[in-house]
Amino acid sequence: MTAQAFADFQDLLMLGPEGDEAAVAAVRARDAQLTKPAGSMGEMEKLVEFLARWQGKATPTMEDPMVAIFAANHGVTDQGVSAFPRDVTQQMVNNFTKGGAAISQICALHEINLRVFELALNMPTGDITVVPAMDERTCAATIAYGMEAIAGDVDLLCIGEMGIGNTTVAAAIYAALYGGTGADWVGRGTGVDDAGLQRKADAVDRALARHAGRLATPFDILANLGGREIAAMVGAIIATRHQKVPVIVDGFVATSAAAIAHAVNPGAIDHCLFAHVSAESGHARALEEMGKPALLDLGMRLGEGSGAALAAVLCKTALHLHKNMATFAEAAVDEKSS
Amino acid sequence: MTAQAFADFQDLLMLGPEGDEAAVAAVRARDAQLTKPAGSMGEMEKLVEFLARWQGKATPTMEDPMVAIFAANHGVTDQGVSAFPRDVTQQMVNNFTKGGAAISQICALHEINLRVFELALNMPTGDITVVPAMDERTCAATIAYGMEAIAGDVDLLCIGEMGIGNTTVAAAIYAALYGGTGADWVGRGTGVDDAGLQRKADAVDRALARHAGRLATPFDILANLGGREIAAMVGAIIATRHQKVPVIVDGFVATSAAAIAHAVNPGAIDHCLFAHVSAESGHARALEEMGKPALLDLGMRLGEGSGAALAAVLCKTALHLHKNMATFAEAAVDEKSS
Repeated sequence: MTAQAFADFQDLLMLGPEGDEAAVAAVRARDAQLTKPAGSMGEMEKLVEFLARWQGKATPTMEDPMVAIFAANHGVTDQGVSAFPRDVTQQMVNNFTKGGAAISQICALHEINLRVFELALNMPTGDITVVPAMDERTCAATIAYGMEAIAGDVDLLCIGEMGIGNTTVAAAIYAALYGGTGADWVGRGTGVDDAGLQRKADAVDRALARHAGRLATPFDILANLGGREIAAMVGAIIATRHQKVPVIVDGFVATSAAAIAHAVNPGAIDHCLFAHVSAESGHARALEEMGKPALLDLGMRLGEGSGAALAAVLCKTALHLHKNMATFAEAAVDEKSS
Repeated sequence: MTAQAFADFQDLLMLGPEGDEAAVAAVRARDAQLTKPAGSMGEMEKLVEFLARWQGKATPTMEDPMVAIFAANHGVTDQGVSAFPRDVTQQMVNNFTKGGAAISQICALHEINLRVFELALNMPTGDITVVPAMDERTCAATIAYGMEAIAGDVDLLCIGEMGIGNTTVAAAIYAALYGGTGADWVGRGTGVDDAGLQRKADAVDRALARHAGRLATPFDILANLGGREIAAMVGAIIATRHQKVPVIVDGFVATSAAAIAHAVNPGAIDHCLFAHVSAESGHARALEEMGKPALLDLGMRLGEGSGAALAAVLCKTALHLHKNMATFAEAAVDEKSS
């Protein structure tokens, strides 16, 4: 049974509005008039339909796309699960803001807004091999924070994250949701060696054993094994659905937030598009467990929302085509004859 | 034996300069200093190396990227192989120039130059089910035209095409190069129905039978079965290698030009990147025959260089990151500890 702290979120996940199929039909009607064979732009056409469906707009917009990076620290880094020290989380947050990071430059080039949400970086979550990551109250407050973070005039949200140690945390969430051991779900993250990979697998196994019996619901899994950035992304996924904002989910860690929402109600993430298949082993399997395809497969494993931002560039391009291409009539091009 | 008309092209295909591995090493040295885990941008990192290797520049550029669309008409349209009338080739050329086509809008949004090369649209090639597409002299002249077309300050060339009927022509080329029947290589192109698909397969089979014995060399295949736009793209592939211009090849038809060059000398297309796997059946197999992976798989089948242009957008983004991201030292981010 879902604890009282999470009851409202549970309700919101069950009650999100459906997609606007009339808006999709309007997009398809215009698309059929554009000077190209029907269907010939493949997934690019689907991206425009995706925006229309979840914005509820016959003429979708991308005037205020935003990449939101949620950053947090993790007690499990005490177990030697990362190739980088914990301080790098704060250092990279500074780098995002100053424009030095990959995501900063993708956003700058393609005119996508970037916001970084720091989640108590000086208070790492509990080391999940020993104690719960968060108590219910902290977890619920962080979900609520994530819901509020995206309020405002956003018409497409990309969710990404930064948090040294968080691929271990995400692996623990997947193992708790879908079964398997640590070894089935951990990967090299930022680049651990074989010994580091073994430490990650062990940490996940110990965390699963330590919290066995307290992982009955997706919210229990989130509180006991998760991280603040993952809880905040769950909140962002909840709020966007009710605010009619389509979401592009980044990689291995961001997808774990979607997996929590999906475990509550598979339909609750219908407004989420999965940007890419991460090179982090386990991501392809997580997508498969949810039955979700990914748009790109570029061997990336950076996080920061970098894969989501590239997918947003394709979205922006697809929408630009939809709005600005000539129709057969406008261009005096003969239509299909057979 | 290669005919005299093609001897110079044959030589140029055998003698292209190798890639500049020192330039690649310089790119890798800078990449290792950027604030991200080594290798974490996957194929995006490889794109910068690709530009460096074939431009021969330690700091590659994308100041003058160009999409070149080669347009031609085909006598084989007399066999009812396309869903659109032949006049659409000229109409779409007009549409490219006026900005109404998909490729026009991709290029406009992302600041990529677009040039359209019309190849005697009022003189379709011969109907390959009856006569050769071109005589040797015409074919050679068209290759030479393609070589000259890209001269100038281009630092990345995307090759695409427009030509009602040309998926049938490309299928005939693949069948001649790699074996198989028409049915193995034809697809729905701009959207033919089942009967049209059968007509395409039959046309390829009849063309192969008609010209059997005159398909001994790749240039023979190109002249007898090919199209003017395909010959011109072969020329573009030859010239770019010698002018140190990397090439992004679009889809099913553009790849047939690369396949001709590859059949002469597999190394002759090392400076070519394959943008995407087309939804046109046969493209994946053609790429497989050459052992070439593709960057994207978006279910597109438009031609016009549209897939190549999207890959160029990723190239542009990757290069922007490479040039503008902060180093670990600049951003005061701790480096990997293990």
